[in-house]
Amino acid sequence: MADYTPRPEDRFSFGLWTVGWRGADPFGAPTREPLEATEAVERLAELGAWGISFHDDDLIPFGAADAERDQRVTAFRKALDATGLCVPMATTNLFTHPVFKDGAFTSNDRDVRRYALRKTLRNLDLAAQLGASTYVLWGGREGAESPAAKDVGAALDRYAEALNLLCGYVREQGYDIRFALEPKPNEPRGDILLPTIGHALGFITQLEEPARVGLNPEVGHEQMAGLSMVHGVAQALWQDKLFHIDLNGQNGPRYDQDLRFGNGDVKTAFFLVDLLETQGYTGPRHFDFKPARTEDYSGVWASAQACMRNYLIFRERASAFRADPEVQEALRASRVDDLRIPTLDAGETLASLAGDDFDVEQAALRGMHYERLDQLALDHLFGTR
Amino acid sequence: MADYTPRPEDRFSFGLWTVGWRGADPFGAPTREPLEATEAVERLAELGAWGISFHDDDLIPFGAADAERDQRVTAFRKALDATGLCVPMATTNLFTHPVFKDGAFTSNDRDVRRYALRKTLRNLDLAAQLGASTYVLWGGREGAESPAAKDVGAALDRYAEALNLLCGYVREQGYDIRFALEPKPNEPRGDILLPTIGHALGFITQLEEPARVGLNPEVGHEQMAGLSMVHGVAQALWQDKLFHIDLNGQNGPRYDQDLRFGNGDVKTAFFLVDLLETQGYTGPRHFDFKPARTEDYSGVWASAQACMRNYLIFRERASAFRADPEVQEALRASRVDDLRIPTLDAGETLASLAGDDFDVEQAALRGMHYERLDQLALDHLFGTR
Amino acid sequence: MADYTPRPEDRFSFGLWTVGWRGADPFGAPTREPLEATEAVERLAELGAWGISFHDDDLIPFGAADAERDQRVTAFRKALDATGLCVPMATTNLFTHPVFKDGAFTSNDRDVRRYALRKTLRNLDLAAQLGASTYVLWGGREGAESPAAKDVGAALDRYAEALNLLCGYVREQGYDIRFALEPKPNEPRGDILLPTIGHALGFITQLEEPARVGLNPEVGHEQMAGLSMVHGVAQALWQDKLFHIDLNGQNGPRYDQDLRFGNGDVKTAFFLVDLLETQGYTGPRHFDFKPARTEDYSGVWASAQACMRNYLIFRERASAFRADPEVQEALRASRVDDLRIPTLDAGETLASLAGDDFDVEQAALRGMHYERLDQLALDHLFGTR
Amino acid sequence: MADYTPRPEDRFSFGLWTVGWRGADPFGAPTREPLEATEAVERLAELGAWGISFHDDDLIPFGAADAERDQRVTAFRKALDATGLCVPMATTNLFTHPVFKDGAFTSNDRDVRRYALRKTLRNLDLAAQLGASTYVLWGGREGAESPAAKDVGAALDRYAEALNLLCGYVREQGYDIRFALEPKPNEPRGDILLPTIGHALGFITQLEEPARVGLNPEVGHEQMAGLSMVHGVAQALWQDKLFHIDLNGQNGPRYDQDLRFGNGDVKTAFFLVDLLETQGYTGPRHFDFKPARTEDYSGVWASAQACMRNYLIFRERASAFRADPEVQEALRASRVDDLRIPTLDAGETLASLAGDDFDVEQAALRGMHYERLDQLALDHLFGTR
Repeated sequence: MADYTPRPEDRFSFGLWTVGWRGADPFGAPTREPLEATEAVERLAELGAWGISFHDDDLIPFGAADAERDQRVTAFRKALDATGLCVPMATTNLFTHPVFKDGAFTSNDRDVRRYALRKTLRNLDLAAQLGASTYVLWGGREGAESPAAKDVGAALDRYAEALNLLCGYVREQGYDIRFALEPKPNEPRGDILLPTIGHALGFITQLEEPARVGLNPEVGHEQMAGLSMVHGVAQALWQDKLFHIDLNGQNGPRYDQDLRFGNGDVKTAFFLVDLLETQGYTGPRHFDFKPARTEDYSGVWASAQACMRNYLIFRERASAFRADPEVQEALRASRVDDLRIPTLDAGETLASLAGDDFDVEQAALRGMHYERLDQLALDHLFGTR
Repeated sequence: MADYTPRPEDRFSFGLWTVGWRGADPFGAPTREPLEATEAVERLAELGAWGISFHDDDLIPFGAADAERDQRVTAFRKALDATGLCVPMATTNLFTHPVFKDGAFTSNDRDVRRYALRKTLRNLDLAAQLGASTYVLWGGREGAESPAAKDVGAALDRYAEALNLLCGYVREQGYDIRFALEPKPNEPRGDILLPTIGHALGFITQLEEPARVGLNPEVGHEQMAGLSMVHGVAQALWQDKLFHIDLNGQNGPRYDQDLRFGNGDVKTAFFLVDLLETQGYTGPRHFDFKPARTEDYSGVWASAQACMRNYLIFRERASAFRADPEVQEALRASRVDDLRIPTLDAGETLASLAGDDFDVEQAALRGMHYERLDQLALDHLFGTR
Repeated sequence: MADYTPRPEDRFSFGLWTVGWRGADPFGAPTREPLEATEAVERLAELGAWGISFHDDDLIPFGAADAERDQRVTAFRKALDATGLCVPMATTNLFTHPVFKDGAFTSNDRDVRRYALRKTLRNLDLAAQLGASTYVLWGGREGAESPAAKDVGAALDRYAEALNLLCGYVREQGYDIRFALEPKPNEPRGDILLPTIGHALGFITQLEEPARVGLNPEVGHEQMAGLSMVHGVAQALWQDKLFHIDLNGQNGPRYDQDLRFGNGDVKTAFFLVDLLETQGYTGPRHFDFKPARTEDYSGVWASAQACMRNYLIFRERASAFRADPEVQEALRASRVDDLRIPTLDAGETLASLAGDDFDVEQAALRGMHYERLDQLALDHLFGTR
Repeated sequence: MADYTPRPEDRFSFGLWTVGWRGADPFGAPTREPLEATEAVERLAELGAWGISFHDDDLIPFGAADAERDQRVTAFRKALDATGLCVPMATTNLFTHPVFKDGAFTSNDRDVRRYALRKTLRNLDLAAQLGASTYVLWGGREGAESPAAKDVGAALDRYAEALNLLCGYVREQGYDIRFALEPKPNEPRGDILLPTIGHALGFITQLEEPARVGLNPEVGHEQMAGLSMVHGVAQALWQDKLFHIDLNGQNGPRYDQDLRFGNGDVKTAFFLVDLLETQGYTGPRHFDFKPARTEDYSGVWASAQACMRNYLIFRERASAFRADPEVQEALRASRVDDLRIPTLDAGETLASLAGDDFDVEQAALRGMHYERLDQLALDHLFGTR
């Protein structure tokens, strides 16, 4: 049995806000003391992480004076240097402060929209300075509780305007940064704009510089809509838009649980790792989870460690699944590979179809053998082959 | 009080399979005798409908000989001529026959994919002949129960290949027909490809002739994923892709209920009509519902009539809502209109933001007044203003 | 048109924590200043409310000294006396403080369980002193995120032990108080014990004094599980266990929205009022909602007022529905009343069935006419009859 | 590694309708030929099953003449005798025929209710004759699409009347049979009566002979409501009402998937087996699943075999989890066992609590260590310890 010890080349990263989450929820006060960013860096490095990501307000308290800001950034950078951790991604907190209660880039209040842009620009500069190559935009407050309250077409115009401006800024500054939209269907707003991977994929095509903008899908967010994370990520990959990924767990449509990766829908987690590894995804394996509110810091670090361990277990098991000769035979029996063959041969036209000799009733009798194939996957997940 | 009598200019249409649904469900046998297509045409015309749509197999039994086919098409056309009903839309049944159990355009079986194309072409010709300008593609069987069973990237390649071929055919034949994809998250497959409006919007951009392909969103399908139908349709409109719409009702994530329009989530139905009417949607108001299995044919016609009646009630109420001076004042108080103003003035750049004098704490105190606005909408829905 | 002005005899009550909710959510800080309990009393009285309910910590800050406690209770009582508002219900906050992170009566920590009892007893005394006749127990923290973490059988033993002790206390003190369990499926715990009306109904039968314990169902909580609030409340009434009710709104399975009553699933709200009014429910019509976080206090009061207005609209419309001769005829056509007739006549035994002359195929042809009946209900809801 | 070969003492049983399901769904025709009951018996016996269950109409076509009935029962019995398979459970089909479209015991039509009783009695006799000790009642058609259509209180009266009559019949006949109610939230009705384990537990207490009636919970049915199957079954066990269990798989709120056991929510399946085995459940392990419609009969048998294999894998892994000294230490660290200790000592009263010396702030700092414990469970599930 492998030892499932994470190494830097595994590209595991964590949000500063994940291990630093203090456990406040809609019905309860925090259960944990604040965690210094520098301690987060040190502990995550010890556990084998490779990178750390942050919102501006995770690192520098909202409204901090310049001196405090500089001091905190310097300390953070020193910790990064000392540990070798990198900053692959950064993002803006456009949701905690009450000023964003109706949104940031799509707030009905124009001066709030302008302020949101300024706040983002400032952190983009810091992101560039710290070497981040992905800048995530989670528009958690971009939405509405009532269809009367939001002109959605206008909101999408403003959203696109903001993205176009940000793309222009990055281009002009020469930053090596791409944007990644993070969809979510609801919570904290009744309905959030760009609620799924699909809606974000559609939206991006309307931007001025679509190549600079991609996706940061989150396991739990798609599962809150009952959607297949594997199918969604596969479509994002198909459209070359998987710029980043948020790994965590969720038990279907309910509040956003942010369980540690591997918890929740175990089977989907396995197949998601299988997809990322077989499709050659090279970006960060970023954990965006919340250690349960019941935990003290020993539980925080245990859960962070388990996120990485579970990824490595799934990776090992998925690799064995793909290498198993019986699986390969089963895939052929299910004609999975045949789907890669174009429906028309080179040179054929639709008119060629008229010549097909196809017995529809006979073809209908063929079994697909998916139950066997799926069970082989479970057996590999369980390590019973 | 208005009389809510439908008229042809309301552009109400029904699927032949809706009033013709015989009530078979996963646990029960049919409860109603078959309905002749000609009778459906006549009765719907009497009720005030404007159009009727069909799957090939609704009109012509699967595998029927040419003589029967001709006879049925002729009778149908005669009924259309006699009643003045038009055929605004047609579609292919690529889901009932067992041969499609693993999909049609994305079946792992290549000969099934070829057969699905042939079946579609044949009905495209009939659709053109009957004057349909929209051809709907609901890929209900394009999906999987296990991520092992389907290479999603390859499936999307084949899906796009099929769409490209169909677009080419329509172009070559000179048909005045556009395609409309109908998303659905699941049922009858565990997970269906292109599960929401968003995923279809994203997919279309990858096609060779994206202008020929748009959306046919269905109320209940989006609500099965807990998504806002109003937001989804608004995004489709924003991307100029609302080619057609399926109106019905649903009570949230569960099996596909296909309730009559107005039933289920009443408030969403009201705001959806408000959106269609204020955004100038000119396509068919197409009802894709199933009269409850408990009903005999009197209940079938009562439910069809109620679909149209409810649309007209919502239209009247939405119109009164928009015209109400207090609503207009409330919309201003909620700054709904301000969202149409670009965040940067003409001539401004991001650098201009530095000059903003913005008091974030003061701005945070402003109320949005959405509770009042939303209640005004409910009052109009209830007719209590 | 009626004026829908609430009056004390309508028995509308509000939680102190509803209009007093400051808008903090999992992703955002409060948007509103604290509201004094006395102001809440005064404003609600002005709006036409009849009662107010409270958690201990709503009225008296957690850990307050006795002097502050006395001062706050006195001021509250004075405001009640001045306005005529009564306190029909009280409850304990066993969820905000971190000590309850694993539950109160079912925490794995025995000393926390003991503390939870003490905290409850103290507020029971205050509830009795203020005249409350219902004491609600919402066990929001009684649950688990992992099945490994909680021995559910033991937890139900402890839950029952706590209820038995509390019933004994109330009996011994001679308080005229009954307990009402408030079910919820999840949030803030991954899975909450007694997740639905049904589970609580089952649990109560295992208590030592089941007559002292009933239900306080909440609209949104049942709808978070996709269940029918109307069916659930009807079963609670059938078992004589509807001791209290929490009225609000929700849009299906997702985070707990606590929308104002009438918002969300409008049709269910209408039929729920119809049920309460036709079944002779005489308890409080208690609103447990959260005014949207986007609002300032003008929005808070607008939403509180709208809760009552919507109830009155639904009551008027339900009454008209029941009085409409066509509805009465439609109910007969649907044989709704026939269900009240026992399946066997007095004197019949199962053996009598052998004599039935029943043509199953003929009976299967009968229509139930539910589409028409349901549409009549919608027409009354819309005021279009 | 164990070989996971099922043996009769594992008490695995299957419904005749599971391996016999022909693959018809709401959008598709059957994909498999009918399966003879005798072949089902033989093949299941070969695979290692212990029992087989049936609906009347699975064994004897609806409306068959007595001669055919006798012939089929005789052949079935002969196959049972030849293979050693037993019939632990039987049930009535009260849902397929259109006559049951509005329900059976709670149909608005009284003569349908009487017919449903007769149909049930007849099959009860056969169940007794074949040695079944459990008789399942799944009221899939007992429900409504509109609250106007069903007087729920009256429906529960009729439901109870039917149960009381059936209990009396079994008592009078001296049959060694208990009834097990199978809850389901919806599908095929919009809302089904007794939608969850809890509602059935509550209902049973209102019956004349509650000891004769218990539960047959189904994994997927609880998960369609987003509820924890583990918690639900634990409550049923706590109330001594787990008479039977239906094992299968489901991916959260959506149509009823009836996946093979082990598929769907893998983690819940593991903990459910852990619960059944550690709580000493001795009844049948009954699989109520549908082999995917994509399969021919080789896939049918592969999926049936996999149901049993997965149960045995989970049983082995759960046993190792409970035996692992580190898990035992982790359970103690999480104080899981402490919940078995009554909150008050023998001899203590509530007054004793006043003497507690409890530091609430100190107690709040304690970690529960659930993340570690839950990860140990996952490691055992994966076989990585």
